[in-house]
Amino acid sequence: MKIAKQMRITDIREQSVKLDVNIRNAVFSFDDMTTSIVAVMTDVIRDGAPITGYAFNSTGRYACGAQMRDRLIPRILRQDPDSLLDESRGGFDPDAIFRAMMFGEKPGGDMERSVAIGTIEVALWDAMAKIEEKPLHALIAERYGAAAPAERIFCYVGGGWYSPDETQESLKAEMQGYLDQGYTLVKAKIGGLPIDDDVQRIETILSVLDGGHQLAVDANCGLSPARALEYAEALKPHGLRWFEEPVHPIDFEATKAFVEAYGNPVATGENLFAAEDFQNLFRYGGFRPGTDIVNIDIPQSYGIGMAARTLEMARRYGWAAPSFVPHGGNQMSLACALGFGMEMCESYPNVFGVFSGYADDARVEDGYLPAPQLPGIGFEGQNALYGLFKELAG
Amino acid sequence: MKIAKQMRITDIREQSVKLDVNIRNAVFSFDDMTTSIVAVMTDVIRDGAPITGYAFNSTGRYACGAQMRDRLIPRILRQDPDSLLDESRGGFDPDAIFRAMMFGEKPGGDMERSVAIGTIEVALWDAMAKIEEKPLHALIAERYGAAAPAERIFCYVGGGWYSPDETQESLKAEMQGYLDQGYTLVKAKIGGLPIDDDVQRIETILSVLDGGHQLAVDANCGLSPARALEYAEALKPHGLRWFEEPVHPIDFEATKAFVEAYGNPVATGENLFAAEDFQNLFRYGGFRPGTDIVNIDIPQSYGIGMAARTLEMARRYGWAAPSFVPHGGNQMSLACALGFGMEMCESYPNVFGVFSGYADDARVEDGYLPAPQLPGIGFEGQNALYGLFKELAG
Repeated sequence: MKIAKQMRITDIREQSVKLDVNIRNAVFSFDDMTTSIVAVMTDVIRDGAPITGYAFNSTGRYACGAQMRDRLIPRILRQDPDSLLDESRGGFDPDAIFRAMMFGEKPGGDMERSVAIGTIEVALWDAMAKIEEKPLHALIAERYGAAAPAERIFCYVGGGWYSPDETQESLKAEMQGYLDQGYTLVKAKIGGLPIDDDVQRIETILSVLDGGHQLAVDANCGLSPARALEYAEALKPHGLRWFEEPVHPIDFEATKAFVEAYGNPVATGENLFAAEDFQNLFRYGGFRPGTDIVNIDIPQSYGIGMAARTLEMARRYGWAAPSFVPHGGNQMSLACALGFGMEMCESYPNVFGVFSGYADDARVEDGYLPAPQLPGIGFEGQNALYGLFKELAG
Repeated sequence: MKIAKQMRITDIREQSVKLDVNIRNAVFSFDDMTTSIVAVMTDVIRDGAPITGYAFNSTGRYACGAQMRDRLIPRILRQDPDSLLDESRGGFDPDAIFRAMMFGEKPGGDMERSVAIGTIEVALWDAMAKIEEKPLHALIAERYGAAAPAERIFCYVGGGWYSPDETQESLKAEMQGYLDQGYTLVKAKIGGLPIDDDVQRIETILSVLDGGHQLAVDANCGLSPARALEYAEALKPHGLRWFEEPVHPIDFEATKAFVEAYGNPVATGENLFAAEDFQNLFRYGGFRPGTDIVNIDIPQSYGIGMAARTLEMARRYGWAAPSFVPHGGNQMSLACALGFGMEMCESYPNVFGVFSGYADDARVEDGYLPAPQLPGIGFEGQNALYGLFKELAG
């Protein structure tokens, strides 16, 4: 397809939205959590309306509209617009737009800007894929993927959040509900109770599953190095699919000690925000390519272009795309998982309100979710969320 | 002194202020730089007026008022005010106020909040020291220091910024000016020119000094690992006082390789924001206690309480307070350097406008700055800066 050379970003808008949730994990409550929704507006007209790209800053980190308004959006809009185009391919150049946003930013301390930059960048990719009339995963695969993206992807469900009202029966009913919806792998929180109670809780969940391979656990970095080793000991015999974020995300010695003590697969990475952080995990964390899992939240860690560079760096340490699983159960992580050839994606049905889950008509079957077919990220297939975006751009 | 038990924080105000500077280093321009000024207001009356603590978020990272307004200030003001007091000592409890600010914050990705939290926390310490009618360095020494603070502290000057108008003569005149002001150690930027030109520039500066021991250089993390090794080779014979931030702040392999190749003292740390980052430097960076220098920007990295915990952690890796030098040439870093027993502080005369330097009547003599005597941080002795704070609190 011939892409027009003179296309322009006409405006970038953002708005902070409060998440309407009330859940907690081992270290955290989401009571006051917010996210930023973003619209990157272009002058490319399709069906009588300008094409606009959308994104939000995943979940678990707060809205970042001030950084966008005060620094990032002006830095993009003040550029010579031709300098933001990809001369050889036609269309926008996400790397040029990334570089424009990074002007005047010191090295290190990434998260203060990586979430805001990544969210704008992912919204830009949404617009780029719509302009090319293809799903975002197809565009990512074309640019960065090794092969054509799969037609479906394995999808596990994140549940088992702590609740004061929980009983053994309610916990079993929750997990049975996920199985009934078509999931074959579930994840539960761990680390928020005394260890014996936590192990009991895991065994309660296992009682409705076919075995440890159907269950992962997630401590959300809530364990001290010593307590993590107790959990490694206690849970090793259960043969779980993986143990996620046992310790602080950049305490690589504690990570390594946990990996050695636990033996079974370990996952971490959703609280790393720069390629240098991931490199430190590979250098120091004792993580084993082919066994352990690297999580990455792409809109929170500078976006799709940086994810491609991170994967390229990872290859030098022996890591391939299937060992990566994106954080954030939403259309953005789905497109990235499919486009980059990652092993699976995650799903949080109804947990984060309209920011949860996939297209309204998407159905999980035998643990797999079909690849979306709408152009772009496909937020247009999520009626309630798309309503927020339309209002922002309207 | 008996401290009233029932004191309260009545309000916390912040304002973004644009820095009126036009300088650059190897990787960065300060053209659009902002900072947040903060006032922590109390109901403790002294001389007919409520005692108020002040701080600003150092320099080089942008204003962070949104985080303060949206999250941190409400989290403090909604607490039971008695829970923010130190029952045993009387007065405010900075650790309790730190914990209140950290509610709902995920582990890792620190800089998005560490600057805002640290600035509020340092302003609180200013109020606490004023309430106790002593300079902040005396209060820090009392709580955390090993000994009574020194009556004067060595102070070097950071200069030699790149300028398109620079000539060899103007560079020599700049450096001679610092010597004339009483400084005996100067620092210059490096890494912003081709290496031969940079070395020539260093030799020009050395021509007005007594030797390499009077000069430090600062690459502001602007060198690639390979280029850093070329600089190590080229500058090793000059016997400089130290080489600061050769490479990316969390590329500890590149740091270690530089330290090994260079041999002479190396400094880094001003772009680390959490105790876990410093721990990684000690574990992996090849830094040598007693030889190398650890920089820390205390208002940018969670404040004074966290600095005390970082120093305690550092001791377990063989590091003592004199190996630390605070980033940021201002009254806050001066109080911290004196209070914690660090070896020296830095000064940037006139570079960052009103956010530069020390009390209006402070004079450097034989390279030393006298310890300030005003209660608190002593911003009251900086007329132009204090005017901004008074307006905020007024």
